[in-house]
Amino acid sequence: MAELVTVDDPADPRLADYRDLRDVQLRRHLEAEHGLFLAEGEKVVRRAVEAGFAPRSFLVAPRWLDGLADVLAASDAPCYVVSEALAEQVTGFHVHRGAIASLERRPLPTVAEVLEGARSVLVLEDVVDHTNVGAIFRSGAALGFDAVLLSPRCADPLYRRSVKVAMGAVFSVPWTRLPDWHDALPALSAAGFTTVALTLAADAVPVEDAVAGVDRIALVLGTEGHGLSPRWQSAADRRAVIPMRAGVDSLNVAAATAVACYVAAAR
Amino acid sequence: MAELVTVDDPADPRLADYRDLRDVQLRRHLEAEHGLFLAEGEKVVRRAVEAGFAPRSFLVAPRWLDGLADVLAASDAPCYVVSEALAEQVTGFHVHRGAIASLERRPLPTVAEVLEGARSVLVLEDVVDHTNVGAIFRSGAALGFDAVLLSPRCADPLYRRSVKVAMGAVFSVPWTRLPDWHDALPALSAAGFTTVALTLAADAVPVEDAVAGVDRIALVLGTEGHGLSPRWQSAADRRAVIPMRAGVDSLNVAAATAVACYVAAAR
Repeated sequence: MAELVTVDDPADPRLADYRDLRDVQLRRHLEAEHGLFLAEGEKVVRRAVEAGFAPRSFLVAPRWLDGLADVLAASDAPCYVVSEALAEQVTGFHVHRGAIASLERRPLPTVAEVLEGARSVLVLEDVVDHTNVGAIFRSGAALGFDAVLLSPRCADPLYRRSVKVAMGAVFSVPWTRLPDWHDALPALSAAGFTTVALTLAADAVPVEDAVAGVDRIALVLGTEGHGLSPRWQSAADRRAVIPMRAGVDSLNVAAATAVACYVAAAR
Repeated sequence: MAELVTVDDPADPRLADYRDLRDVQLRRHLEAEHGLFLAEGEKVVRRAVEAGFAPRSFLVAPRWLDGLADVLAASDAPCYVVSEALAEQVTGFHVHRGAIASLERRPLPTVAEVLEGARSVLVLEDVVDHTNVGAIFRSGAALGFDAVLLSPRCADPLYRRSVKVAMGAVFSVPWTRLPDWHDALPALSAAGFTTVALTLAADAVPVEDAVAGVDRIALVLGTEGHGLSPRWQSAADRRAVIPMRAGVDSLNVAAATAVACYVAAAR
């Protein structure tokens, strides 16, 4: 049973994990150095714990304690009970549904471990926006994708905003960082995946044709501004496009991923 | 030719349109009362002007003036030239690509005007998140939808965040508010559209089947938290679902819209 500890001093050092959540730079340092991440809202906190992440502590407003009672009962981490006003003062924003938890990160699995048994994999190159990363995990999980691989410069799936947008899919879908950007796609091909790159390149075929008959698929998506690098476009086994109305910008990467996952799921 | 006016006092009243852009409540009042909206970044500013919206003024950092030269040359509105530091001080955040414009809103068209000639229409019920509204406009435009209708409580497509996420599609796609929530869907059916509601209802059929053979379609999407109201679900001609992996939450509304638009475009 988590010990309930009422805290009414916003400067209390035990709240350090929850400070200044709107300061992205500060949080990156703090979370990396302490090996922690945050889950926000009852549903997402529960999913993190159920996925086996070890809580460091909980921060909960009194009226949300009941909803998390079962989770708290099963944990030895302290639960700091604070007013919603104090939670807002410490974190710098209105805490969604009055509950937030700090949890221990785990070592990332190897690429081989993530690919084990997977039939449909998403591969992201330099998707730097936490909202997009979270949205891609959520769509991938809903539409039957088994795993996600991230290039070295992609945004962190366990950053608070990613976790929230993903509705916890970052806990349930296996993922890791690719250690090697340059040969990542040839390595996937060698591992038995057909790599299909979403691109506006002239030789791209409609995505429905590109995925037809493919067994193990690695769907490859590029960065928000400029799409996939030339290296990854040329290294992919196939280049695919989502047919669009003439004169319109490409789709947002999260929307393109949803469409491509839907099409691939029906392959 | 826009008159270039160098401003170096952050309190200058001529910058009033650009103040405190992170304060959503304040901005809502200010923009409604003055009938203005903001476009941010060279590309989006250009699209707003090209779509015929009249600029009230521009706020541009010196190094972004060249990129907007043609737009400024064609306008009589003043262009306030400010340092990037002053722009950040006034607006409260880092201005994307150093250019922002304040433009006059126009009276909304009638529903009949928006539907005139449209074959594929999106209908949103109480989508309250500006990012989702913007993303839906962008996907709809890219995937061949002709118009958007918004329930009375949907978020404002001309709010800065919507405009930015939509990459200006809120200017090019005709849209309006539905004056009547209760009978909105029967009215669309009477106007010759087949209304297809995206829902997790038990009697929903796969979206591919629901749109097959439909000529004029109105694709109906619900609010972020709880989806469509019972009223709209039951009033729709057809109920459709995007097949998902068991045990996973529904898709985000923007992702669901992208998938449904893609499927409908190929009908």
